Amino acid sequence: MHVDVIPTINEAISDDFVQKTVVVIDVLRATSSMATAIEHGCSKIIPVETVNRARQLQAKGQMLGGERYCKKIPGFDFGNSPIEYMNESVRGATIIMSTSNGTRAIQKSLKASHVLAGCILNASACARAALAFEKDIRIVCAGTQDQFSLEDGLGAGLILHEMMALRADLEVGDFGQAMHSAFLHVRDGLEEALFRCKNGRKLVRLGMAEDVAFCARPNVFEAVPVMRGDALVAWRPAATAN
Amino acid sequence: MHVDVIPTINEAISDDFVQKTVVVIDVLRATSSMATAIEHGCSKIIPVETVNRARQLQAKGQMLGGERYCKKIPGFDFGNSPIEYMNESVRGATIIMSTSNGTRAIQKSLKASHVLAGCILNASACARAALAFEKDIRIVCAGTQDQFSLEDGLGAGLILHEMMALRADLEVGDFGQAMHSAFLHVRDGLEEALFRCKNGRKLVRLGMAEDVAFCARPNVFEAVPVMRGDALVAWRPAATAN
Repeated sequence: MHVDVIPTINEAISDDFVQKTVVVIDVLRATSSMATAIEHGCSKIIPVETVNRARQLQAKGQMLGGERYCKKIPGFDFGNSPIEYMNESVRGATIIMSTSNGTRAIQKSLKASHVLAGCILNASACARAALAFEKDIRIVCAGTQDQFSLEDGLGAGLILHEMMALRADLEVGDFGQAMHSAFLHVRDGLEEALFRCKNGRKLVRLGMAEDVAFCARPNVFEAVPVMRGDALVAWRPAATAN
Repeated sequence: MHVDVIPTINEAISDDFVQKTVVVIDVLRATSSMATAIEHGCSKIIPVETVNRARQLQAKGQMLGGERYCKKIPGFDFGNSPIEYMNESVRGATIIMSTSNGTRAIQKSLKASHVLAGCILNASACARAALAFEKDIRIVCAGTQDQFSLEDGLGAGLILHEMMALRADLEVGDFGQAMHSAFLHVRDGLEEALFRCKNGRKLVRLGMAEDVAFCARPNVFEAVPVMRGDALVAWRPAATAN
């Protein structure tokens, strides 16, 4: 099984995803928020590219979440802080979500056989889910405005590390090897690394340091958001036994 | 002073290089060959993009070097093995060189104030030279056919590491931080890492394992090829004292 890591959405080629499993990573903060919502009982997350599309799609009882320039969109129920999605109102809800980079990366990945939302929080579960689909894997770092973001690369390195622990026969491309080494070098200081990267510093400036610390905790969630039709729903490891 | 690492030539934006110092890295093998030739007394290396251009430019007494598909070009004096450039005939010579990725990366960097050819062999000297120019720095990993190559990333990480040892005030972008961490993780096994990456494995298959081992030795050269007009010439640390 071959695993490649793609540095940014910009470098992702949709046609390359056909017959593959794609793991989209936007550690700060879209896929961390998605994983948090799904872990806390959210039924469905519908990722959309634009704010207008989110508003158009909204049916009765559905909620809206997302950000532009790191801030909650006016009139939306939730922003893009994962901590907001631990709210009791999330349980059983359908949330339509639009963020600057993460939801765009998911939309660009839809030609894949399977699309998962991965982050540091659900890395181990995400590795198990991706391997269970038994196809070659592309881990797509969302990045920020077409630039590589360190936190996504470290998340990819961690997910790769978890995959390697589960399977000995993985062939990992050059960029994946680099991200794996980078992760291993900072694994005992992952939170500091996230505070040191560009998006981490930006969130601290905006008063959102708590989000950075929250997103830096490896393997605390079991649920993996996976695309089924137009929405992300929970995939849990136990499901493979059925 | 700000330092960014660019993953491949493809992502390099020429206009971004204006008023910057650019270090081009093609560890396997173009910039390693250039550094070897300059270290061994070559006067000038003229990097050109095409084989035809190399032949057109050749004046009496000048030699031709380079490769396509890793192999020496018919009729050329040298291929792209750094070991060939330790030849006595290199001393004082002008060599016109064309390779698949490295010379293209240099051509794309010519809007910069200074363009240096860096590799693992001359990393420390290259770091000193780049800092001496007192401008923001872009380290451009040449990559291979627009794909990231691990050996270039590790070379960038090593050069960054040498820069950081010389200056405490460097601001390093996210991709540079990732490459620095990746280098630190494999620094005691740099040769194995080069044999494990895609181009390393390819060179071994082609019977060129010796080249891979040669290029994996950090800081054994003092000379840095730097563009002056249309050619790379030697920059030596001592030159700063003049």
